[in-house]
Order: sequence, then C-alpha cells, then structure tokens
Amino acid sequence: MSNQNKTAHSIDNLYDSTELITQEVLMRYEQTPDPRLREIMLSLIKHIHGFAKEVKLTSKEWLFAMQYLEESGKWCSPGRNEFMIFSDALGLSMLTVTQDYPKPAHATEATLVGPFLLENAPEFAMGADISAGAAGTPMYAKGKILDIHGKPIPNVTIDVWHSDDRGLYDVQDDFDSNGTWARAVLKTDSSGEYHFWSVLPVDYPIPQDGTAIEMIKATSGRTMRPAHLHFRIQCDGHKPLVTHIFDKNSANLNNDAVFGVRPSLIADFIHHPKGMAPDGKNMERDFYTLNYDFILP
Amino acid sequence: MSNQNKTAHSIDNLYDSTELITQEVLMRYEQTPDPRLREIMLSLIKHIHGFAKEVKLTSKEWLFAMQYLEESGKWCSPGRNEFMIFSDALGLSMLTVTQDYPKPAHATEATLVGPFLLENAPEFAMGADISAGAAGTPMYAKGKILDIHGKPIPNVTIDVWHSDDRGLYDVQDDFDSNGTWARAVLKTDSSGEYHFWSVLPVDYPIPQDGTAIEMIKATSGRTMRPAHLHFRIQCDGHKPLVTHIFDKNSANLNNDAVFGVRPSLIADFIHHPKGMAPDGKNMERDFYTLNYDFILP
Repeated sequence: MSNQNKTAHSIDNLYDSTELITQEVLMRYEQTPDPRLREIMLSLIKHIHGFAKEVKLTSKEWLFAMQYLEESGKWCSPGRNEFMIFSDALGLSMLTVTQDYPKPAHATEATLVGPFLLENAPEFAMGADISAGAAGTPMYAKGKILDIHGKPIPNVTIDVWHSDDRGLYDVQDDFDSNGTWARAVLKTDSSGEYHFWSVLPVDYPIPQDGTAIEMIKATSGRTMRPAHLHFRIQCDGHKPLVTHIFDKNSANLNNDAVFGVRPSLIADFIHHPKGMAPDGKNMERDFYTLNYDFILP
Repeated sequence: MSNQNKTAHSIDNLYDSTELITQEVLMRYEQTPDPRLREIMLSLIKHIHGFAKEVKLTSKEWLFAMQYLEESGKWCSPGRNEFMIFSDALGLSMLTVTQDYPKPAHATEATLVGPFLLENAPEFAMGADISAGAAGTPMYAKGKILDIHGKPIPNVTIDVWHSDDRGLYDVQDDFDSNGTWARAVLKTDSSGEYHFWSVLPVDYPIPQDGTAIEMIKATSGRTMRPAHLHFRIQCDGHKPLVTHIFDKNSANLNNDAVFGVRPSLIADFIHHPKGMAPDGKNMERDFYTLNYDFILP
C-alpha cells in the first residue's frame, strides 16, 4: 500500500476514539497557511467537537441538523439571510458587535445589523417620504450626524430601513413585484443634518415562516422585537455605524428576541395631533416625531 | 415603560459585556421545555459563544461567515448537502458516527454517510449491472449479510452508490437529465447473499465546485478521498449500517479528506484478465472482483 500519510497516526489506530479524531483533525488544520484563519479554524474545531462530545450527539440528531441547515438555506433571498436570524437569536450577533465595537464614550452605540439589510437601496432626496406606500401612522425623523466633539460630519451616507404597521419589512412581503418600501439611502450635505418622513415602526415577531422561528418556538419562546428603525451610517474618516433606534413606548424592550436593545438607543417617538409638522407640512392626521443625533467615534 | 422582563438583568446593564450577553442567552434557553433539546442548545450556545470570544471574532468575519452559509445553501440539491461536506471535512461526521455506533465486536464498522446519498434510488434485480452507463473498469461485488453468529440475515435492503472512473457521482454530473447511475437499491432473499456488477470506484477529490472545497483548500489542503463503495444496509431487527468498503490499493487511505477510513473496511478489489467471471459471465476485457461480508450487530 502506498503511504502518503503526513500525520502522526498510522492507519491502524486512526479514528478508533473521538479523542483521536479530534487530534487528527486539529493536526491537519494546523497546516492552514494564513495565521488568522488557522486560529479561527482550530478554535472552531475544538468547540464544535467539544459540543458534539459534551451532548453525545447522535447520528439522528446530526442528520436533523444537516437537513435543517439545508432547509435554512432555502429561506435565504435578497434582503433575508436565515442564518443571520439564527445567529441573532443565539446571541452570537450581539456578542460579535459588542466585542468588535466597544462602547465608545459619548458616541452612539452599535447594535446588530439584522437579516433584512439590502445593499444598493434606492436613494431618496433629504426630507422625502421614504414609506413608498407602506401602511402606518406618519412619522417624521430628524437629527444630525456629529463627531465626538459635536461637530457636524459632512457628506454622510445613511441607510434606513424598518417595518410597516403590520411589523413586516418589504423583503418579507411583495418585494419581488413591488420593490422596496420603508427603506432608503439618504445623503447629507455639509450641515450633517438628516430628516425624512416614513411610518411609525411597531413591535413585531421575527419572521413566522422559515426555520429560525421553529427553533425559537421550541426553546426560549421569545419571538418579539421592540419597535425600531435600522440605521447604517457611513462616511470617510469614521468607522461605519450600524445601529437601531428603539421606541421608548415598546412593551418588548426587555424581551428582544435578538438581544439588540441598548439603553442609549432608546428614544422618544413623540405623538402629535393633526396640524403643522416641524418641516412646515400640514398634517391632516396624527403623526409622530423623532429627534436623534448620531455621534460617530 | 411597560416591563415584561422575565430575566434577572435590568435593561440598564444588559449586553454591556460579552459575559452578560452569554448569561442572558443561556438564561432564556434554559426555558426550553424538552430536556434533550435544552441540553443541546445550552451546550451549543456555550461553545458558539466560547469560540467567538476565544478568537475575538470581528463583525467583518461574522458577516463573511453568514454570507458563506447562505452561499453554501445554494449548492444543496437532491443528493448533495453542502453542509454535510463541511461537517465531514471538519471531522464532525466521523466523531458522531464513532460515538453513536461504537465499534461492535466481530461486526462491521460504520463510517460516515457522505453528502451524496439519495433516498428512493431505483431498485435493481440481484446480480444486475447497476452502473447504468457509468464509465469505468467492470467490477463484480458479492458477499453476504450475516448476524454476529454467522447466520445469514434474510430480506435485507441494500443501498449502494459510488463514483465512476472520473471520480464523479451521478448527482454531480448529468443527474437532472439522465437520472441515477452507479447507484441502486438491492433486496436480498433468505440466503442473505448480494451480488452485482458495476464499475471500479477510483480515488477522487471532494467536489471542486461549491463552498466546502474553498475552505479545505485554504486550510488543510486535503481534498482527496480513497476509492470506495458506499453501502447502507437496513433490515428488521438490526440497527441500520451505513459504511464504505475502501480499495486496499488506494494511495489515499491515510489521507481521506473526511476522516472516513477504518482498517476493517479496507478490502481487496482483485484484478482479473478477460475471461470467465465468478457469475459465469464471459468478460471480453479486464475486470475486478470484491468479496465482502457485512456483519450486523
């Protein structure tokens, strides 16, 4: 028999025990050329093997997991990544954000991106109504993008996206036929100011179709997200900020299915009777206003 | 603010540190009603969080992983589960087989199922040529299905599947247009004997398209599998056996990309010049024979 073995074990005792398997796998992945990838793979293997050994994972459970991963892949589409929902619901997303974006003094905190970000969303003129037909109570949001010294940052690109009053996002609904709604790219000028109209976001459960919801219902049972707007703020010279602004009146601030709430990101969405809005628009029905400044580190 | 918090932390200190996040996530999943699912989820969360903290996973790396999982889902199709290839290449599949199917005295050992098993493969008459047009050197395989006392087990259902001489499986090639080849269900009678014609399997690299191969090339670099036949053997009264029979002449027995080789599963595929085959067939070209008995615990 030709022998191209580069590993320490002979064929005679390989894989007789789970310990030998782990040793052999680690030995091979130690050959990973890139040091960072090597570090990640060795830790990943140790923890995946550690998990499977700790619970004495059975073949039947393993097969279920493999089929569940395959099924989860089928729920992915532009603007929806089912694996992110798992990551969010298992706290991995917030753990990563927390260790990668330490809470900066005076600056706005980051939170998770969530599964519904779309790259290349349509650009709206500053001040426009971005709801694009989404149902809900009108909401006017405004504020500034500032540096930590309080100075306006010019030429910022803002992505904003949020739910309608059913708690759905465009990508969950009629996206294929009607495109985006309650989603926009806005570009600031040298004033650093942003403002736009849309509809008030509401508390909603994470997607009720797909595989992640099955896991959550069978485990923690926590499916709700408190009402929020998503923001991604990008500009030259600052680290991009991905965050939410949460509605102070939400009943689910302590119950977020994906652990995304941070106290500094909770804001007043103020109710107003019909009448004149801050931008001079005459509103013939009740509306809400939000005023929130983002401070980039 | 309405407070529906059922957890120990107040909103004021939630998620300020990765430790608090892990505690909060574990606390929620401790509410999982099913005890086995609870055990699995708590261990999974501890290990996933442990991994992310140990390597200080960044948001960029996390996003890459999420996109890589989504991309992997796109490579799944009937007869191909890309996530299984990852599991195989990370040693998780063999670890699971090893702890779930302990090496039985005298009985045939199990090994991993691999990503290419198809349920409901076509049934062939015992003794038929199952190659169905697959290219390669003819091979005649025969043997018995026995219990650990050496007694034939009647009425066994055997799935067999393997590569052609290019190292490809039907599901990797023209499956959509031409259906299965080198793949069959065989049913034994009371003699417990099986025999069939096909083509000799060869060493092959794991799929060169898809995402798993990218990981392997960037890490261990071990992409080869030693030549083998896949078997799944099912009957009443015995635990199903999923295993391979490996070719003793393979150059990659110590180099299996998926850690699947066990010494007891290595067998002689014997070369014969043209002439009379064991079943009386007159062969006009060289051929191989395999004789392997399976012993079910």
